[in-house]
Amino acid sequence: MDLNLLLFDGFQSLDLFGPLDVLARIPGCVPRSFSLRGGPVKNNAGMQVLTEPSSEVAPGGVLLIPGGMGTRPLSTDAPFLAEVKRLAESSEWCLSVCTGSVLLAASGALDGRRATSNKYSFSWVERFKGPVWQRSARWVVDGKFYTASGVAAGIDMAFGFVEDRLGKETSDAFARRMEYVRNPDPENDPFRV
Amino acid sequence: MDLNLLLFDGFQSLDLFGPLDVLARIPGCVPRSFSLRGGPVKNNAGMQVLTEPSSEVAPGGVLLIPGGMGTRPLSTDAPFLAEVKRLAESSEWCLSVCTGSVLLAASGALDGRRATSNKYSFSWVERFKGPVWQRSARWVVDGKFYTASGVAAGIDMAFGFVEDRLGKETSDAFARRMEYVRNPDPENDPFRV
Repeated sequence: MDLNLLLFDGFQSLDLFGPLDVLARIPGCVPRSFSLRGGPVKNNAGMQVLTEPSSEVAPGGVLLIPGGMGTRPLSTDAPFLAEVKRLAESSEWCLSVCTGSVLLAASGALDGRRATSNKYSFSWVERFKGPVWQRSARWVVDGKFYTASGVAAGIDMAFGFVEDRLGKETSDAFARRMEYVRNPDPENDPFRV
Repeated sequence: MDLNLLLFDGFQSLDLFGPLDVLARIPGCVPRSFSLRGGPVKNNAGMQVLTEPSSEVAPGGVLLIPGGMGTRPLSTDAPFLAEVKRLAESSEWCLSVCTGSVLLAASGALDGRRATSNKYSFSWVERFKGPVWQRSARWVVDGKFYTASGVAAGIDMAFGFVEDRLGKETSDAFARRMEYVRNPDPENDPFRV
């Protein structure tokens, strides 16, 4: 299973690395880091992660898009959004965390879909028309799209994705190994708007 | 406040990036990534992060040491352990997550201190004499040393560190912004051995 991580300057670390550490436990998972042009990408803390150009993403696989302050300028960046739409369409499963769903929404990939996003940026999020935004949801599944609420919610979503694919026993076992207490219910949202 | 991250090949992503995203919210926090020789370092998923040589860490600040499978070979690597001890001694606060505490223990920096570590590797952890290992603790504070249990416990420890420095209100506010439900009690360990 290809796990294709779409990075950009100003992505929020935990949005990416929380779900990564969950999903990387799936047998056969091969994580790869991409960005629009490839090369070093800076996270929210200025750390540089090396990436390949997103033109090299193979069709299929799991696409994971983090959020973070870097989504603000990208939410109106037409070439970037065209690539987001292309990658979302060619993926088998498309996962976003936090304001990563805004990039999907702005690209048109979530038109008519139920979706959620960061609860502290929700008034900004709702400016992006197309998705049916859910104000109360830890995460939302609509077809192949999984969208999580802010930051830490991505970890619960990733365990939910593992449960949906491999069963509750496997997902719970992954969580125990990570000493993580899951919120297993996508409708249980302590931070609802 | 310098936040000095000590990376090595095979570090566990969430051990590092969970606490980073919490601590980076402290006003004035400046995160920097280091490794023994500098250059690209691979995390557990093979992603490459750029680092500076650890000889450039300034005295003081917060040292954060993640765990992960990369700690196994390093736990007997004398030059690396000497550097860990030097960095721990010169730090103002020294934090470890998961088997990061094994590196501190093997370096001698935790001699006589109470400490904890990953609960699923505890039989290996306890081979390292020196610390008074705690089999039930989400995290342990002894002097300037904070040691967390496995992986996700590092996030709770980081919020605990923020609470100890800046108060409960600030720490709880950080957690809400990250949509994270804290375990605020270091003695509440759902994964005790």
